[in-house]
Amino acid sequence: MEDNKAMVIFQPSGRRGEVPKGVTLIEASRLLGVDIESLCGEKKVCGKCIVRIEEGHFEKYNVVSNMKNVSEWQEEEDKYINEEAKAKGFRLGCVTTVQGDLLIFVPEESRAGKQVVSKAARDIHIDHDPAVKMYYVEVVPPTFEEPTGDFERICRELEKLYGLKDLKLDIHTLRQLPMALRDGDWKVTLSVWMDQEIIRVRPGKVEHAYGIAIDVGTTTVAGYFCDLTTMEVINTITLMNPQCKYGEDVMARITFHMTTEDGLKRMSDDIIEGLNWLVDQAIQGTYPPKKKKKDENGKVVKDEDGQPVMVEAPEEGKTYLRLSREDIEDITLGGNTAMHHILLNLNPEFVGLAPFPPVIHHSLDIKARDLGIHINPSSYVFVLPNEAGFVGADNVGVLIAEAPYKSDEIQLIIDIGTNGELVLGNKDKLISSSCATGPALEGAQLAFGMRAAPGAIERIKIDPETHDVDYKVIGRDAWLKYSEPKEMKAKGICGSGILDVLAELYAAGIITKSGAFSQELKSDRFRRNPDTNQPEFVLAWAEETSIEKDVVITQRDVRQIQLAKGALYAGCKLMMRRMNMDKMDKVKIAGAFGTHVDREKALIMGLFPDCEIEKILSVGNAAGDGCRAALLNRKKRDEANWVSRNVEYVELTVEGDFQKEFMGAMQIPHMTDEFPHLEGIVREEILKQ
Amino acid sequence: MEDNKAMVIFQPSGRRGEVPKGVTLIEASRLLGVDIESLCGEKKVCGKCIVRIEEGHFEKYNVVSNMKNVSEWQEEEDKYINEEAKAKGFRLGCVTTVQGDLLIFVPEESRAGKQVVSKAARDIHIDHDPAVKMYYVEVVPPTFEEPTGDFERICRELEKLYGLKDLKLDIHTLRQLPMALRDGDWKVTLSVWMDQEIIRVRPGKVEHAYGIAIDVGTTTVAGYFCDLTTMEVINTITLMNPQCKYGEDVMARITFHMTTEDGLKRMSDDIIEGLNWLVDQAIQGTYPPKKKKKDENGKVVKDEDGQPVMVEAPEEGKTYLRLSREDIEDITLGGNTAMHHILLNLNPEFVGLAPFPPVIHHSLDIKARDLGIHINPSSYVFVLPNEAGFVGADNVGVLIAEAPYKSDEIQLIIDIGTNGELVLGNKDKLISSSCATGPALEGAQLAFGMRAAPGAIERIKIDPETHDVDYKVIGRDAWLKYSEPKEMKAKGICGSGILDVLAELYAAGIITKSGAFSQELKSDRFRRNPDTNQPEFVLAWAEETSIEKDVVITQRDVRQIQLAKGALYAGCKLMMRRMNMDKMDKVKIAGAFGTHVDREKALIMGLFPDCEIEKILSVGNAAGDGCRAALLNRKKRDEANWVSRNVEYVELTVEGDFQKEFMGAMQIPHMTDEFPHLEGIVREEILKQ
Repeated sequence: MEDNKAMVIFQPSGRRGEVPKGVTLIEASRLLGVDIESLCGEKKVCGKCIVRIEEGHFEKYNVVSNMKNVSEWQEEEDKYINEEAKAKGFRLGCVTTVQGDLLIFVPEESRAGKQVVSKAARDIHIDHDPAVKMYYVEVVPPTFEEPTGDFERICRELEKLYGLKDLKLDIHTLRQLPMALRDGDWKVTLSVWMDQEIIRVRPGKVEHAYGIAIDVGTTTVAGYFCDLTTMEVINTITLMNPQCKYGEDVMARITFHMTTEDGLKRMSDDIIEGLNWLVDQAIQGTYPPKKKKKDENGKVVKDEDGQPVMVEAPEEGKTYLRLSREDIEDITLGGNTAMHHILLNLNPEFVGLAPFPPVIHHSLDIKARDLGIHINPSSYVFVLPNEAGFVGADNVGVLIAEAPYKSDEIQLIIDIGTNGELVLGNKDKLISSSCATGPALEGAQLAFGMRAAPGAIERIKIDPETHDVDYKVIGRDAWLKYSEPKEMKAKGICGSGILDVLAELYAAGIITKSGAFSQELKSDRFRRNPDTNQPEFVLAWAEETSIEKDVVITQRDVRQIQLAKGALYAGCKLMMRRMNMDKMDKVKIAGAFGTHVDREKALIMGLFPDCEIEKILSVGNAAGDGCRAALLNRKKRDEANWVSRNVEYVELTVEGDFQKEFMGAMQIPHMTDEFPHLEGIVREEILKQ
Repeated sequence: MEDNKAMVIFQPSGRRGEVPKGVTLIEASRLLGVDIESLCGEKKVCGKCIVRIEEGHFEKYNVVSNMKNVSEWQEEEDKYINEEAKAKGFRLGCVTTVQGDLLIFVPEESRAGKQVVSKAARDIHIDHDPAVKMYYVEVVPPTFEEPTGDFERICRELEKLYGLKDLKLDIHTLRQLPMALRDGDWKVTLSVWMDQEIIRVRPGKVEHAYGIAIDVGTTTVAGYFCDLTTMEVINTITLMNPQCKYGEDVMARITFHMTTEDGLKRMSDDIIEGLNWLVDQAIQGTYPPKKKKKDENGKVVKDEDGQPVMVEAPEEGKTYLRLSREDIEDITLGGNTAMHHILLNLNPEFVGLAPFPPVIHHSLDIKARDLGIHINPSSYVFVLPNEAGFVGADNVGVLIAEAPYKSDEIQLIIDIGTNGELVLGNKDKLISSSCATGPALEGAQLAFGMRAAPGAIERIKIDPETHDVDYKVIGRDAWLKYSEPKEMKAKGICGSGILDVLAELYAAGIITKSGAFSQELKSDRFRRNPDTNQPEFVLAWAEETSIEKDVVITQRDVRQIQLAKGALYAGCKLMMRRMNMDKMDKVKIAGAFGTHVDREKALIMGLFPDCEIEKILSVGNAAGDGCRAALLNRKKRDEANWVSRNVEYVELTVEGDFQKEFMGAMQIPHMTDEFPHLEGIVREEILKQ
């Protein structure tokens, strides 16, 4: 690298590249296509562009990042960054300059562009029987004749009215009790967990309690914020798993633990920090939005620092819940075995070593405070049980949401995330397995991969003759063809666009069956990257983007997608062979990817073995749905423990011909004889739809 | 006060007085008879004399103490006091000088003079059935055929071998599991709490676990450090309740909470700090003592700072347990209701207000970590249940130790502490009550009151003719009569000496029946204190002491003892009336006081109503014994909950003629017609024994 340049990586987007030394972090972010919030236009007065410099040697990127590689602390920063945050490496992006290689984490609140929820909750049926229920009691005050203590006084009433016996409570709840009873004039509402433990006491009559079901993916974390009384999903919050900076897949994270002192604790702390952020986001959504305060002349009112004063701007007729952290009284968590272990700070080493035993299968009830999660202090976090190998609590979530163990039909359930998890069978027998797909199908780790957010290319068509590209981005209805280039503001490619791109590249003859860029290709869109010498194809020209550089798909990107689909296809094939079947009655695709995927293109591109097209269903984030089912129905928790021990786990990598199947499955597309259901359809027609 | 003098109070001894401004804290301690450790003779090199300046307005003493009232920080202090301790107010006693009024806390480790255990454990019968038991298992390692997780693998074995089912474990223990299994080559010892929860995993076979039963008194805290396997009491550790600085009795502490922001938290934090210190003391006792290292020429080896290098000096043939905090796996706690509430940071306000309802009666199982107590992180603290009013978990301890509910005989059990607690009855009916005795009978709050430590006067005789005093101190067998004055090294009067002093003062005609110093008294030992103008009587001349001042008993001291004994006697009388009885079959005296008291003198001085002398028993620290019983036998925990709800609590202060009884009971001695059992004994003879 030239001496006057430095390698800069932005997390969680993973965007990286060289920038000239001396540019500000904001300038660097713009050069690399990362949007950082900057309300004041870098006048150093809004304090929105706070980012964190990560310290460490990031082998994956061959980058050593530390505080010496940025300019010295500036006085302006004191105003926005306190001593504690400063110690953690936080800096103001508009005043800090790049002096060497850096890995920079952009906190969610500093990221520009409102996120489009990609893991929305589905409308699945759940019986209402939450683990946390509310009970209202009125008691008579103590007298000399009847001076019984506060706890026994309410317990007597809880037993009389509701039949609740032998209730416990922890010291935090006990501390609330005397004042709540007196503030409520001897009338209180008690939140009771599993009819076993009082976890909260509030004065008077209260009718609602809230909980969050959280699916901790390797790349994406999705939280469903629910009213435990009405079962309504109030909102959905997603974030990148903050552990992404330590490695993109589960094995990389396990390796980070094994090679780095305190590595496990760092990863655990990071995801816990992420969950706390998620909780805060859930709560913030229950307050009215804010707007700038204006005086009678319509002029913006400013505070002594020249900043606009913000006031609440409630929508007319809308009521706001205005909740606090303490109002979150239950959390359920799912994730693959590695995410499960790392989150809980459990040694994940042996999960990564044959025969891959987890530390625990059974579900766990852990006080949120023992994990450092800041909700109602006496509340529990329910952690779904693990199956085996990497097939963990997330797949158990999928299973209790889809309940194939109650079905006659033979179902193949594919949960596509960074780790692909497969379940095959019906009420007679279920087997499960996992395969390393990597995050490519989610759009991550591609040169211009990004989350499903405004500016993400989600649909694409390539003219086979001219190789002209037409596409559509999230946040804009009109395709490029009907737009001015500058209106597109493209930024990257999201998961749902990936298969489209691959199919179109192939149909247009730009890539061959083996996935290589065609040698004969003549197009100004096709070129070799001057830095890497990698072939790449331009999907959007710089002028169509908001990042002032061409959005491309590289040879490496194509390979990543091939690897992912090959692993999936081979896994399905081997499981079918294990069960002695050659067809399924139903294929269910779970995960964010499944929500957006064009099922015909998925079949044609060979993501999984043949199935009637109308029997291919997208079931959305079923892992998250399972977490939600466990949140709202405590019987689903028992069901989860039952199913986790009654699915037979198959370790695919030890099957003799896994490698052969895998290599074959990487080709695009598969031989038509593998897809009899497509016989009546002309492949090329589908590809050109 | 003169301008060049300052009021200095030392805690926990309570010694106070004026000292000239400018003296060092060590000099001040010497002037006031407080012994602070100083190995180097104030050469500023040993760092042993560290004390803490308490900040606040101590109304009881009318003293405002803060860091401004001492000299500035000296460079020498940096070596012994780190930043954190400095922030907490710690200073080096030999370099810091008095500049204004001060309340100084002397940490146990800075107190000179080894303590004599005053609350030794009694040899009571306890069936061995501890709440924490150990189970050893060997499992086969996981294979591809049997890849079950670690937790389920050991649970299967625990059920097979020991019938333990549905075991839980918390996240801390779960984190130990994978490495313990592998380090122990798939053989581990599990500590299981109440046959319900695994609280510790250790590699290989381990046979011992340890616990501490702690009686949290208003003035004194006593911990019995036990081997849970052998039931042996390894040692007993006592300390002053660090809350003493906030007020001497329970009402003063409750008032401190109600009048001081964060007062409850400060008191709770202080006792928790005290319990952690107690744990550390217990552990330290399991290591060999240390001695100065000497070279081959017998010269003391010094380190680079000129300090002697210390090496372990194990006694020959003795083995040492060498335990760590994690080896403490169970704690039981008792205390009166106010101590119970304050320790647990539960609002004690309503315990102090009629009709005195506690927040909870039932026992509590609280994770030690949730209280900030540093032992094995997954272990529980068992807090004994409360009865009613101030009669709390300490009295439940007394009850399960003495089990009057299993007896035919009518027993009166008196637990004498700062708060007197009374139980009367037998297996048919038990009633309990409490009375405010204050700490005088324990020797605290008297002008020269002190703990049972070397130098404490424990027996005394006064010649009725000459008023000459002969006495014996703890730590020396010979009475004054057989000693050189300077050999006595008297320092004060401990609890067991108090009744002797009072009885002798009365028998010698120095005080009258009403407790006033006789007007006719002619003796150079009798005088008025020049500062307070209070009458006082010299028990030991300055030359006989180690504190270079006369040890006296004051008129106020006599009144304190009268108040204490009057409250006790009146309480007993009213309870007997409530039960329609005029005599008891047995009187049991509990508390440290009971251990040393001369039962005849107690009877004669009127501590409690008449009873045959041989039926008066000292049962030592029965509250502590009850805590120990609950530690070593889990069934005693159920028994504690049962008895706490089956003793009828009587609020004495609302009885119509409590005041009248109380006033009468303050007289010394009581009319002989109240003591028919003493008829055969000549009072005066007993008094002069």
